[in-house]
Amino acid sequence: MPRQLHLSAFLMNTGHHEASWRLAESDPFAHVDLAHYVHLARIAERGTFDSLFLADGPQLWGTVSQRPAGALEPLTLLTALATATEHIGLIATASTSYNSPYNLARKVASLDIISGGRAGWNIVTTAGAEAARNFGLAAEPAHAERYARAAEFLDVALKLWDSWEDDAIVADKASGVWGDDTKIHPPRHQGTYFSVEGALNVPRSPQGYPLLVQAGSSEDGKAFAARYAEAVFTAQQTLKDAQDFYADLKSRVVQAGRDPEHLKVLPGIVPVIGSTETEARAAEQELEDHIVHEHGVANLERLFQLPAGTLKLDTELPADLPSEDSIEGAKSRYTLVVELARRERLTVRQLIGRLGGGRGHLTFAGTPEQVADAIERWFTLGAADGFNIMPAVLPSGLDLFVDHVVPILRARGLLREEYGPRRTLRERYGLPRPANQYTATLV
Amino acid sequence: MPRQLHLSAFLMNTGHHEASWRLAESDPFAHVDLAHYVHLARIAERGTFDSLFLADGPQLWGTVSQRPAGALEPLTLLTALATATEHIGLIATASTSYNSPYNLARKVASLDIISGGRAGWNIVTTAGAEAARNFGLAAEPAHAERYARAAEFLDVALKLWDSWEDDAIVADKASGVWGDDTKIHPPRHQGTYFSVEGALNVPRSPQGYPLLVQAGSSEDGKAFAARYAEAVFTAQQTLKDAQDFYADLKSRVVQAGRDPEHLKVLPGIVPVIGSTETEARAAEQELEDHIVHEHGVANLERLFQLPAGTLKLDTELPADLPSEDSIEGAKSRYTLVVELARRERLTVRQLIGRLGGGRGHLTFAGTPEQVADAIERWFTLGAADGFNIMPAVLPSGLDLFVDHVVPILRARGLLREEYGPRRTLRERYGLPRPANQYTATLV
Repeated sequence: MPRQLHLSAFLMNTGHHEASWRLAESDPFAHVDLAHYVHLARIAERGTFDSLFLADGPQLWGTVSQRPAGALEPLTLLTALATATEHIGLIATASTSYNSPYNLARKVASLDIISGGRAGWNIVTTAGAEAARNFGLAAEPAHAERYARAAEFLDVALKLWDSWEDDAIVADKASGVWGDDTKIHPPRHQGTYFSVEGALNVPRSPQGYPLLVQAGSSEDGKAFAARYAEAVFTAQQTLKDAQDFYADLKSRVVQAGRDPEHLKVLPGIVPVIGSTETEARAAEQELEDHIVHEHGVANLERLFQLPAGTLKLDTELPADLPSEDSIEGAKSRYTLVVELARRERLTVRQLIGRLGGGRGHLTFAGTPEQVADAIERWFTLGAADGFNIMPAVLPSGLDLFVDHVVPILRARGLLREEYGPRRTLRERYGLPRPANQYTATLV
Repeated sequence: MPRQLHLSAFLMNTGHHEASWRLAESDPFAHVDLAHYVHLARIAERGTFDSLFLADGPQLWGTVSQRPAGALEPLTLLTALATATEHIGLIATASTSYNSPYNLARKVASLDIISGGRAGWNIVTTAGAEAARNFGLAAEPAHAERYARAAEFLDVALKLWDSWEDDAIVADKASGVWGDDTKIHPPRHQGTYFSVEGALNVPRSPQGYPLLVQAGSSEDGKAFAARYAEAVFTAQQTLKDAQDFYADLKSRVVQAGRDPEHLKVLPGIVPVIGSTETEARAAEQELEDHIVHEHGVANLERLFQLPAGTLKLDTELPADLPSEDSIEGAKSRYTLVVELARRERLTVRQLIGRLGGGRGHLTFAGTPEQVADAIERWFTLGAADGFNIMPAVLPSGLDLFVDHVVPILRARGLLREEYGPRRTLRERYGLPRPANQYTATLV
């Protein structure tokens, strides 16, 4: 079968554009409305997407005056969506810095069981002091320490997910033996960040363990991805940067002794679709006209660690911004924003307009043909195995994509026509079911 | 309206009797089968129960050879059941010793929103070293310390649930103001066990906060219940003991300055129903015949902290068991089992038979009339505001109860005929929606 696109629908209340909630069509209470998310999930399933994707951080971001804040916790929301859908994968973001491996491993395994093998975990280390202060820490742990903890977290979680062999349950009613105790493997883990003694209290799930997704593009992030990730969600502004990132990551996967086909690279894109180019530009402009620029200035000053009042709307960024090395928060996002502004010589106002749509992800604006062309170009020129689709406005942007871009992609043989039989998320991504680490060595 | 029963359905894989999985009718894989739980939830809703109840502990209990082990994580399972039901409350057990307040508060609030105000939290401190060792501790924290942490956990959770005022979202599209920052109240909590700075990232939920349920009957447990609980699930073997517990707890609630009607006492009962007494006894006997007694001996030795091989099947318990004071684990369960054995002079074999059905909860075996009589007696004689129904075998035991006992209770005016309009779980229990602590003082 020819190589086909992997599409994920990144869901976010009224859409990824920060001003989307202000449009007449938008429901400003959508962020807590299950029916809204069920509607979105069903549109994505109509478009035969591989998965849904939800971001997360355990803190209230910024101020509530600015835009919809707060959200249903992703694993909870995706569990509800599992019952409303049949085929689509369910990728929840959860933090290794602010969870316990035992609690998180069993929640994700429970979702994998309930959904029939459709769970994915987007592994994040969670930047920012706000989150740290919600969990007893005075300040954000250093970037490298967060990644060291993440690696140990993964090792423990993988042991927990393997702690029941697939055939541990014998269910012999006649003799009264339900399970085979020799097929239960307590991790007995004693490490730097975690001590976890006992086996998980959930049997091994349909996928063995959930699809492992990762999103950081810093050096630490790429090293982590090469070792563990099965899909990487990334922000890339140009084809060239995306190709470089793709080639770099695949070669790191090979160096880690893994098959490069077993890690899928999915840039995020914000499609803004019109029946003509003019209509698409008008849709972009309408959103930009609804941006409150003072919020954008405050957000950029926070990202750049500058005092309030430093940035001026109609001038370019100052020349003496801190280097990425001095940033302990979201390193790769920092660099992406600075490079975008410098490369295109954007004023602060223009930068805010560019970031408003996808917070650094690329906007593909145009007709359905043009959007499909751009997707095909990135896909065939070694920049992507698929995309995380981030509609600027929801639900209408997802509807437009599925009704107008998806048929073109299908006609070109780039996307499945239908789901066919039920499959696990890992199978949809063309990945094998992992062997159990406690039995693999015995074979 | 006359006082009516509050019924909860305590769901557990193939039933509460430890040997239930061995019956021909039982599915030994029911513990991970969403369809099984959806079926049970719908039976309970047909019986107009107030709520479903799920137990939990973050560890694998005992050995898997013995009986079905492992389970879907309760908040995850109840979220899936929320979408399959319309009226029934959803009470999840979760530990204050092995969770972070921020994570747990947002998950429970998310379930409350998704279910339209039907979430409940059974607050447990989690006995046992097995759980402790899954969370980086070498040994179980002392009983009193677990309760001290639980009290602080509740204070933080209540602040988080109140951190958004009910009208914090203004959604003013014209001016671009989504929320009112003055109506967000970060806890800024600095305590003995927790430091939690920021507001929750979920708005205030339909119930304000979930129904607070508690189950420990030790001194610490009762003190905690008097202060926080809105429903108490308890194990009582005799009418007299249940009346004493009921009166004691209600008076403690009054002493804590609360309305005694705002705490409901719900003993657990195991109904074993037959169309004749003989049939009910035969059903009990069939279950008892399926018990593997060596497992029961090992479990009792663990509860009593005795070396393996101490207990003999056909003799009574030794006279020199440790006192409750020396038990740091499940104190009230320990005392209940010892007292039951002593009071009825049971041999170890007989004790195992009695505990097999409900782990210390009372079995009401008989015809539907007899079971209804027992329920009515406890309800009218000051021993209970309702019951947590724990069928020995599932789903058949819940079906029998709903088809044969529920109609008798309805005919006697003790149970609602239908749900009527949608209500929150707190409304079903006759409890007011709590005021927000940050606005209540301003009124």
